[in-house]
Amino acid sequence: MPARHRNIVPGFPHLLHGGDWNPDQWLDRPEVIEQDHQLMSEAGVNALSVGIFAWAALEPEEGRYEFAWLDAILDRLAKDGRKAILATPSGSKPAWMSLKYPEVRRMHNGVREPHHTRHNHCYTAPVYRAKVAAINRALAERYARHPALGAWHLSNEYGGDCQCPLCWDAFRAWLQRRHGSLAELNRAWYTAFWGHTFSAWAEVNALDRTMHAMTLDWRRFVSDQTADFIRAEAAPLRRLTPQIPLTTNFMGTYPGLDYHRLAQELDFISWDAYPDWHPAGGDDLDTAAHTGFNHDLMRGCGGGKPWVLMESTPSSVNWKKLSRPKQPGMHRAASLQAVGHGSEGVLYFQWRKGRGCSEKFHGAVVDHDGRSDHRVFREVAALGATLGRLGAAVGAPVVAQAAVLYDWDVAWAIDEGQMQRNCDKDYIATAMDHHRPLWRRGIAVDVVSQRADLARYRLVVAPMALLLHPGVAERLESFVRAGGVLVATYLTGQVDHNDQCFLGGFPGPLRALFGVRAPEMDTPPDHVVQTLAPTAAGTALGLSGSYPTRHFDELLVAEDAEVLATYAHEWYAGTPAVTRRTVGAGEAWYIGARGDRRLADDVVGGIAARLGLERALDLPLPEGVAAQARGTGADRLVFVENFAGAPRTLALGPGWRDAESGAPLAELALARYDARVLARA
Amino acid sequence: MPARHRNIVPGFPHLLHGGDWNPDQWLDRPEVIEQDHQLMSEAGVNALSVGIFAWAALEPEEGRYEFAWLDAILDRLAKDGRKAILATPSGSKPAWMSLKYPEVRRMHNGVREPHHTRHNHCYTAPVYRAKVAAINRALAERYARHPALGAWHLSNEYGGDCQCPLCWDAFRAWLQRRHGSLAELNRAWYTAFWGHTFSAWAEVNALDRTMHAMTLDWRRFVSDQTADFIRAEAAPLRRLTPQIPLTTNFMGTYPGLDYHRLAQELDFISWDAYPDWHPAGGDDLDTAAHTGFNHDLMRGCGGGKPWVLMESTPSSVNWKKLSRPKQPGMHRAASLQAVGHGSEGVLYFQWRKGRGCSEKFHGAVVDHDGRSDHRVFREVAALGATLGRLGAAVGAPVVAQAAVLYDWDVAWAIDEGQMQRNCDKDYIATAMDHHRPLWRRGIAVDVVSQRADLARYRLVVAPMALLLHPGVAERLESFVRAGGVLVATYLTGQVDHNDQCFLGGFPGPLRALFGVRAPEMDTPPDHVVQTLAPTAAGTALGLSGSYPTRHFDELLVAEDAEVLATYAHEWYAGTPAVTRRTVGAGEAWYIGARGDRRLADDVVGGIAARLGLERALDLPLPEGVAAQARGTGADRLVFVENFAGAPRTLALGPGWRDAESGAPLAELALARYDARVLARA
Amino acid sequence: MPARHRNIVPGFPHLLHGGDWNPDQWLDRPEVIEQDHQLMSEAGVNALSVGIFAWAALEPEEGRYEFAWLDAILDRLAKDGRKAILATPSGSKPAWMSLKYPEVRRMHNGVREPHHTRHNHCYTAPVYRAKVAAINRALAERYARHPALGAWHLSNEYGGDCQCPLCWDAFRAWLQRRHGSLAELNRAWYTAFWGHTFSAWAEVNALDRTMHAMTLDWRRFVSDQTADFIRAEAAPLRRLTPQIPLTTNFMGTYPGLDYHRLAQELDFISWDAYPDWHPAGGDDLDTAAHTGFNHDLMRGCGGGKPWVLMESTPSSVNWKKLSRPKQPGMHRAASLQAVGHGSEGVLYFQWRKGRGCSEKFHGAVVDHDGRSDHRVFREVAALGATLGRLGAAVGAPVVAQAAVLYDWDVAWAIDEGQMQRNCDKDYIATAMDHHRPLWRRGIAVDVVSQRADLARYRLVVAPMALLLHPGVAERLESFVRAGGVLVATYLTGQVDHNDQCFLGGFPGPLRALFGVRAPEMDTPPDHVVQTLAPTAAGTALGLSGSYPTRHFDELLVAEDAEVLATYAHEWYAGTPAVTRRTVGAGEAWYIGARGDRRLADDVVGGIAARLGLERALDLPLPEGVAAQARGTGADRLVFVENFAGAPRTLALGPGWRDAESGAPLAELALARYDARVLARA
Repeated sequence: MPARHRNIVPGFPHLLHGGDWNPDQWLDRPEVIEQDHQLMSEAGVNALSVGIFAWAALEPEEGRYEFAWLDAILDRLAKDGRKAILATPSGSKPAWMSLKYPEVRRMHNGVREPHHTRHNHCYTAPVYRAKVAAINRALAERYARHPALGAWHLSNEYGGDCQCPLCWDAFRAWLQRRHGSLAELNRAWYTAFWGHTFSAWAEVNALDRTMHAMTLDWRRFVSDQTADFIRAEAAPLRRLTPQIPLTTNFMGTYPGLDYHRLAQELDFISWDAYPDWHPAGGDDLDTAAHTGFNHDLMRGCGGGKPWVLMESTPSSVNWKKLSRPKQPGMHRAASLQAVGHGSEGVLYFQWRKGRGCSEKFHGAVVDHDGRSDHRVFREVAALGATLGRLGAAVGAPVVAQAAVLYDWDVAWAIDEGQMQRNCDKDYIATAMDHHRPLWRRGIAVDVVSQRADLARYRLVVAPMALLLHPGVAERLESFVRAGGVLVATYLTGQVDHNDQCFLGGFPGPLRALFGVRAPEMDTPPDHVVQTLAPTAAGTALGLSGSYPTRHFDELLVAEDAEVLATYAHEWYAGTPAVTRRTVGAGEAWYIGARGDRRLADDVVGGIAARLGLERALDLPLPEGVAAQARGTGADRLVFVENFAGAPRTLALGPGWRDAESGAPLAELALARYDARVLARA
Repeated sequence: MPARHRNIVPGFPHLLHGGDWNPDQWLDRPEVIEQDHQLMSEAGVNALSVGIFAWAALEPEEGRYEFAWLDAILDRLAKDGRKAILATPSGSKPAWMSLKYPEVRRMHNGVREPHHTRHNHCYTAPVYRAKVAAINRALAERYARHPALGAWHLSNEYGGDCQCPLCWDAFRAWLQRRHGSLAELNRAWYTAFWGHTFSAWAEVNALDRTMHAMTLDWRRFVSDQTADFIRAEAAPLRRLTPQIPLTTNFMGTYPGLDYHRLAQELDFISWDAYPDWHPAGGDDLDTAAHTGFNHDLMRGCGGGKPWVLMESTPSSVNWKKLSRPKQPGMHRAASLQAVGHGSEGVLYFQWRKGRGCSEKFHGAVVDHDGRSDHRVFREVAALGATLGRLGAAVGAPVVAQAAVLYDWDVAWAIDEGQMQRNCDKDYIATAMDHHRPLWRRGIAVDVVSQRADLARYRLVVAPMALLLHPGVAERLESFVRAGGVLVATYLTGQVDHNDQCFLGGFPGPLRALFGVRAPEMDTPPDHVVQTLAPTAAGTALGLSGSYPTRHFDELLVAEDAEVLATYAHEWYAGTPAVTRRTVGAGEAWYIGARGDRRLADDVVGGIAARLGLERALDLPLPEGVAAQARGTGADRLVFVENFAGAPRTLALGPGWRDAESGAPLAELALARYDARVLARA
Repeated sequence: MPARHRNIVPGFPHLLHGGDWNPDQWLDRPEVIEQDHQLMSEAGVNALSVGIFAWAALEPEEGRYEFAWLDAILDRLAKDGRKAILATPSGSKPAWMSLKYPEVRRMHNGVREPHHTRHNHCYTAPVYRAKVAAINRALAERYARHPALGAWHLSNEYGGDCQCPLCWDAFRAWLQRRHGSLAELNRAWYTAFWGHTFSAWAEVNALDRTMHAMTLDWRRFVSDQTADFIRAEAAPLRRLTPQIPLTTNFMGTYPGLDYHRLAQELDFISWDAYPDWHPAGGDDLDTAAHTGFNHDLMRGCGGGKPWVLMESTPSSVNWKKLSRPKQPGMHRAASLQAVGHGSEGVLYFQWRKGRGCSEKFHGAVVDHDGRSDHRVFREVAALGATLGRLGAAVGAPVVAQAAVLYDWDVAWAIDEGQMQRNCDKDYIATAMDHHRPLWRRGIAVDVVSQRADLARYRLVVAPMALLLHPGVAERLESFVRAGGVLVATYLTGQVDHNDQCFLGGFPGPLRALFGVRAPEMDTPPDHVVQTLAPTAAGTALGLSGSYPTRHFDELLVAEDAEVLATYAHEWYAGTPAVTRRTVGAGEAWYIGARGDRRLADDVVGGIAARLGLERALDLPLPEGVAAQARGTGADRLVFVENFAGAPRTLALGPGWRDAESGAPLAELALARYDARVLARA
């Protein structure tokens, strides 16, 4: 992803505020469109995603384009200085196309999907690609110089797969490129197991879930093919509007696509965040921590550069089992958290509720009644004012000294492989648990792939890195030797990129680096009590008390490592569970068991303290308060949110002012869900 | 539904007692048929449903009818003065037909069902309609003058849908009639959403669950098409046996068909009631209250006229997860409850257990051993005697001053729409909860559609009326202005008949009538505590204490209404939750939150008391005792059942006698599950 | 099953120790194969199952066989005196075959399966049978005289069904043979129900789950067709290697196949046992008891002769939700339990973990690292030494005086029929509960079919014998009259072999034998309290206190039987629940309710004590200790395992020695999971 822009939209100095706008649903009521603009002004809205599902409106019959309505929409936007994030319409194909060209519809289990819902076109079908290229070219030609055109919004929430004959042809071609020969494919996929050796390419014609390397490759292919589709979508846009940046909206840890791969096709990252605020049976702090992880992951996809919160709800959603409205204050807190994590603005799904169909009860800035005296509208407008005041000051990147590794390949290998334990594997939750000790201390973290450049970090945490890509072990060792601290956990280094087990004992090629071997693992059910007891060495490094474990207990052999904690119960009492090895200028920690949150906090937080990793605020954050910094030195802005569910106070001391009001701040009193932006005084 | 008969079967003065009889299963054992008749006499049985699944017996090969066996069956019935409720056999097609004419089998997702089970024919296929018309004509011709012929039992438990090409053709034709043009269809279905605009009728070829108006129309079409099939089934019967009434057996709140629509094709309503007596984790009183609701709903489908309990089990069923036998007494109590709610008798599935297949363990009057000394048989026989004693006295209609609104369109809009909360929506349970305050006071209630004539009522309760049909708002306002009391709840008036949201603020066209607006809603998870606190105005109207709420909390703005209760907790503490507006001579109450049972009872029961609605007995009923009245004045009969699980006593005072024995009754002592019929002394 | 061999492998005097070995997965790494052999020697391994899924390796393209690699494998085995249990490769067809001959793939609901996973070939397709016959013949021709060939392992874990047109043709032919005419079929299937009468054979073309007799016949057909396939597989082997015994690996109570039927095709029984040791929410003693039942069932399939534990895991599996490794000692205890129940050895899945695909994390003797210093390997090796020491002494059969009846037909009738209760039916668990009182006393039990010869037993327990095959009632009565004690339970004798209810009152043809009738049944939900109170007669026979019941309570009429216990609660308090009738020289007990474990123990254990059934050890076993005997008199060996989870001590008294060490043993101290083999001193 080339670094093209400091801010997302060239020449547009404001933080983006706006969201999905669907005037194509009420073109017959122009007064609504005008009312929308008045409300947008009232809410400080400057950027609207338009045309996302407008293909049927733009091309009502094959080859006949109707742009007049969109001309009017863009002109009206430009009139008030607002920007369009103009969508290509490929997220929902017109009904006439589904009827005339059945191959644009996906196929699974030999059955072609009917025309229905959205996000379900075949990524391979040449006719679909041609139709997309044509309409995208027409859009680019028409609006290339339009003053409202701010960015391209490619399609919408790419996802899913298709298993039609065209896709299988493409997959076989992909496999031939990847593996070269059928012999290599047989070797890579370990097809001798259960006698699944292929003797002709044509025999590769159905997914076999028992052949993990095949399903891994299928998922990689789906990501590559989607990326290829994106590139094809983008080609006319890149040619005709080279100055306009391109994005598509990601979905956090969505398992269907490797966003690290897709990111390569985009100019900036954007994503749709729908945290479960005020959750059933949970608390907001958990939600905030998880959201912070997701923001850091999405930012990581873009190499750390600013990104955009493309969708969020100002109140509730309507597609979960249960979704409460954001309570007073939460909208501001959640939005500033996103900006603190690097977003260049706050956008919503949706600006106004549509009258019918499946999103008519989804939260929006403007309700069916078009009023601006709603609580939700008022909070959005207040945020608009805040973003307006902050606008010029924001834009510096987040700079992180720590990284958590997260890989889609690892997620696939864990979730789709069969293990001793096939429940509670929880890769995502574990990654979040190891991100949280840093997040809660206000320490910036990049969530990045194993393939990322690690040299910039001082601490790298690699939770459950079951699968190791080629070269990763070597690079991790270099990182440590050069002074970095590496923390890994149970299940590390068990399979290679073809999901074949390493043969020299787990953690595979990292065995020497950690100085441990994990020859056996217990997977106790919930009623079994197991705890870790720190050794003297562990105590010296900040471990204390007794840490309960669950789900995964590796029985370690410390071949060349300090033992920091051992198991206290069961037949393996006394067996090493947590170790550390000093290597060169750095350290390699191995946590062999799934401990509680305190264990991760003591280990990762303790290391961060010893390393003196930079914090957003140089003071202990009260429980429930989060802080993120953007920029350095005098330009540094600190975003502080209170997710505690109760008031909190921070003794800032001298040197700070409120970035909005400019008023000096020595003590920061935060009401429930209060959020503030601090600048250096 | 024309009012043709005071009693169901013309010229037959008895309450019906009998049920499904399947001698076609044991034609090879004529001694069993003779034993059946002896046992029927012993049990006071006078009406038998025959031939329900007898197509293969009546037409063993295409075009060859065999009626001899049915002749014998009907002759034997007539000999003892029993009536046949003669079924048309369309509920289960012969195997030869499924093989020769595949189009009689239903299709879903492009796959034709195999020949199996029952109730699965295509309602559209011309060949099936022709075959049904032919056999029905043959039956009517043969038995038009048979003395045993009492009524026609059309098919059995119509239900389900078919999505074959013929049905899709029929649906498109139906849509053309309903909407006129494709432009109107696009508007009604709000197809601009997600770019689903249709440009040719042929594109309407698959259900899209995200397009709620389409699924609503599909369900309406299925009801209409089923009604059309019924009309076609009935045509030869109406022509050849105009004197014989027609029914089919309904299934309470079965969601697949709009019984208000189907009822238009029938001469009287009948239904199959299988309450969950002695339920796991519940109590019998709940079951009795729910059953009372269902009886009132079914009676309402017939415009309030007497109806027939077409199926019930004398003991247990065999198709639930768990079904206990009715305990001693419960059979009498449950049966008299049905008669009290307007049934003209008590019929069973099944008279005798068949030896094989899926209903061989279903409860029956006669078990496999053919004995009459079973407890179950003895209780059935005792009930037969009771019905015989009551026979001439029963027949007057139930007269209700109150109504609860229940609409299948509303159920579909709630269940299939996506909302802030997609669990615990519970439309049926909520309707029952608002029916129960009246039911437990012995106040007769009609459960009717929004389209019913409301002028006859003094109180109308409209729970969760999310969807409003055209004209309903106006009629509700007229009802109130004329002096009626209307009670509505959260979720009222949000969408029109095309499932498009009303734009002027919820409750849509009823906003002025109630004087409230509901701009926001909380949907708290179960662990959140929320309660309602009555205001002084509310207290004056009988509200008291604190009412817990759950699932739905609308934050009301009382634009022109008295506030009767407000929320006590969360960020919307103090916000109005229950309001009342006096309008003309009447009142419009709005309950904005899902309260507990006590709230519904205090509101609805309180209004009933203030209005002085007539009760079956003019005294407080002990908890667990239910009472229903039929008729007025001297002919009035009161049915009293004790569902409390313990003895109960009622001080009736003077003026009552036992309708069976004639003995005067000043005090009524009811054992557990006891039931009695009272007449004026 | 002809009695061909005292020991399984002719001329091979050792207990088998080994398991599935898959060198076809690492043919490219010959050093691994050599390492395997060294480790086999270290572990005392003498028998390897090879070639199970090797078809693609043996016939890489159609008609071209490659045996060189298998020659080398067998030669190497022979070199060290090890035996091959040589598999036919039909468990997994080559990809080329699936592509060229689609009919080898199974079909369900009209859809042909893709090529994937395993165990999914059509049993009927002639081309598959021809291919199997050809490769089996080639294998037999090549290895008929090979010194390593010890036994044939037919395919692998046969299971599932296919519903392709070829199978439906075969089913119709099977039905014609079974029922003779369509009229007989209609009668047997009770097709008059729901008008399902067939008028042509072609109409029998889809499974109808509501027609229980059809599904029963389908399951019987699947078993017969699988047996027919086995016979076809075996034909060339029987012809070319008549001296080599044949088996296939069963799976305990696997519901898909009637193993009593399949056993007729085999020379000895083997099965794959994967008990859930250290279970979530359970205890090991339950697991041990259930495993004992399964061993007895599998032994029963072979007429009581020695059998082989063909697969077991030395540690954990990877296909359960959760599988802990066997804890120290458990491997020895579980393995000796199998030998005590009649196994001629202990074999594993798998010798060495494969690198890729779905079983790469399944437990194995040798891990990916190839080390022999793992705990698991050491325990396997220690067991190998034990088996080696015991080898010559073991071989005598288990001799049982008691039997528990278990039938697949009964399981199908219970599980697939619709009853008053369709949850918690628990046929298997109930059978185990009635086996356990004997097992825990060290009394040998055969678990056999209703069709087994019962004359050899003194006690027969027939739990939940809902379905009775023809003649069984007569044979049970003869058994009792001749002095046997028969114990039956609720649900006995309700349907015949066509799943048609007996007409003379339940328990059908056994009503006179038991002297009871069960006209009614309660099926209380969990919150209902019901208990049994012993009568004086019951107390005299050892019943005591109060026994809670659940799920099933039959209300018995004791027509001609002593009442031993009655119900204490509900409306049927005082009704008989447990009865006994003395008949001839024997007794017929009827337990009408599902009691707790103590009830089964008091009844069955009490009878066993009164009858003086022989125990493995003539002393009370401490709770948690199991004991099994093989052989009689001086050759008798007694296997003792401690599953208690804590140490246990047995005062053996004089006359015993440790069969391994020869040391005399008067007191036996067993650590947790300890196990010992005793011989007469």
